[in-house]
Amino acid sequence: MVGKVYLIGAGPGDPELLTLKAVRALGEADVVLVDDLVGREVLRFARRARVIEVGKRGGCKSTPQQFIERLMARCARRGRVVARLKGGDPFVFGRGGEEMLALRAAGIDYEVVPGVTAGLGIAAAMDVPVTHRELAHGVTFVSGHLRNGTEPDWRTLALTGTTLVVYMGFARVRHIAAELLAGGMPPCTPAAAVSSGTLPGERRVVTRLARLADDVARAGITSPALLVIGGVVSLARGTAAGLTRRDAA
Amino acid sequence: MVGKVYLIGAGPGDPELLTLKAVRALGEADVVLVDDLVGREVLRFARRARVIEVGKRGGCKSTPQQFIERLMARCARRGRVVARLKGGDPFVFGRGGEEMLALRAAGIDYEVVPGVTAGLGIAAAMDVPVTHRELAHGVTFVSGHLRNGTEPDWRTLALTGTTLVVYMGFARVRHIAAELLAGGMPPCTPAAAVSSGTLPGERRVVTRLARLADDVARAGITSPALLVIGGVVSLARGTAAGLTRRDAA
Repeated sequence: MVGKVYLIGAGPGDPELLTLKAVRALGEADVVLVDDLVGREVLRFARRARVIEVGKRGGCKSTPQQFIERLMARCARRGRVVARLKGGDPFVFGRGGEEMLALRAAGIDYEVVPGVTAGLGIAAAMDVPVTHRELAHGVTFVSGHLRNGTEPDWRTLALTGTTLVVYMGFARVRHIAAELLAGGMPPCTPAAAVSSGTLPGERRVVTRLARLADDVARAGITSPALLVIGGVVSLARGTAAGLTRRDAA
Repeated sequence: MVGKVYLIGAGPGDPELLTLKAVRALGEADVVLVDDLVGREVLRFARRARVIEVGKRGGCKSTPQQFIERLMARCARRGRVVARLKGGDPFVFGRGGEEMLALRAAGIDYEVVPGVTAGLGIAAAMDVPVTHRELAHGVTFVSGHLRNGTEPDWRTLALTGTTLVVYMGFARVRHIAAELLAGGMPPCTPAAAVSSGTLPGERRVVTRLARLADDVARAGITSPALLVIGGVVSLARGTAAGLTRRDAA
């Protein structure tokens, strides 16, 4: 008997944001490999599985990527159904693509179960529509932390007319804001930072781009956090700081 | 008794990509207002609801947006639980933000239930990781069809280093490809068009940016379809046309 690997997006945090397909795959699983950022409540759907934590966080001791890829393949070759559970969507950052390619190269059967990416889950929890016909032509999800010390071209991103959602950019928020301003993004552009989005411990600050770095520090937001930048942020429910609709237009 | 409106994302097509929260909200609903692009299978979760079709498609007779917003508010004021079901994620195009603002202005209680946006669902079904550390710093979801005849700044979008996913761009694929090329995107950039993504009738073509418009016409792809443009498209499962990993790097 040959096994299989499900690459599963667990959504942004709230266990109710798992898909039916993710729940089914967890129910079939013999083994679950789970990242740090996935809430433990979702493991109740993996009734008969052995759970292995393979988290890695910036700065902390972590499980090497190659080890994870080999472990998935080994379990599947032994006939096991493996659920590889990742936060958000498996293909939005988090190296799900690399894991898929490793499985493909190893000839292991796999299936990708998409999920609600953190940027959309958190925007929904804040009542921020990431697109809006008058305020944003689209939305860009970008990583603030790239390989080899390179980084996104913030000055170009400042000109796209899309809402920017920055993953893993919290530690560099001052630099990112400065680059966006240098690229021509107005200092009064509404901007937010959110940690533990969609969860009971959610913390957020809603402010302006020019003050984002200072206000994030003051508000005690901690990593991991998402940054959301663009006119639509003015629509956040209960937004203070004088961010009215008129300001954003 | 006061009612409530759930603004629900139904995901990209496959009913299994509904979230648990969407299923719960449908189960609570007295009334479901459903768009054209939502598969009818998901209505089985709305066991006791009256279903009202409020679809609108480009070119066809459609339900005016204001009528939908008033109907939601009226039902909620009568104490009904309303499920407003939209394809994909309610806040990625599709005017979910406008509907939320109308409810807020009317003082109606509402809750946003995020979903798997079509761009992520379809990419997962094609095995295309929309981000990849070597191939794309991020992903941009953009609408090819904007209000007032304006359009996204394709030449700037060509330079962002992100995977581009174009919603509602099918009818203008030739123009969009030409603009991206004019903006400096290489002609050999891998590109795909997908219709009925994640559903049994899915059709797709995987090619190069320079040939996208011709190949889409030849392949018989029909609207609505998504365009996915960027190096990551070379990773699609079963990709023909000589799109190897090396080409994309």
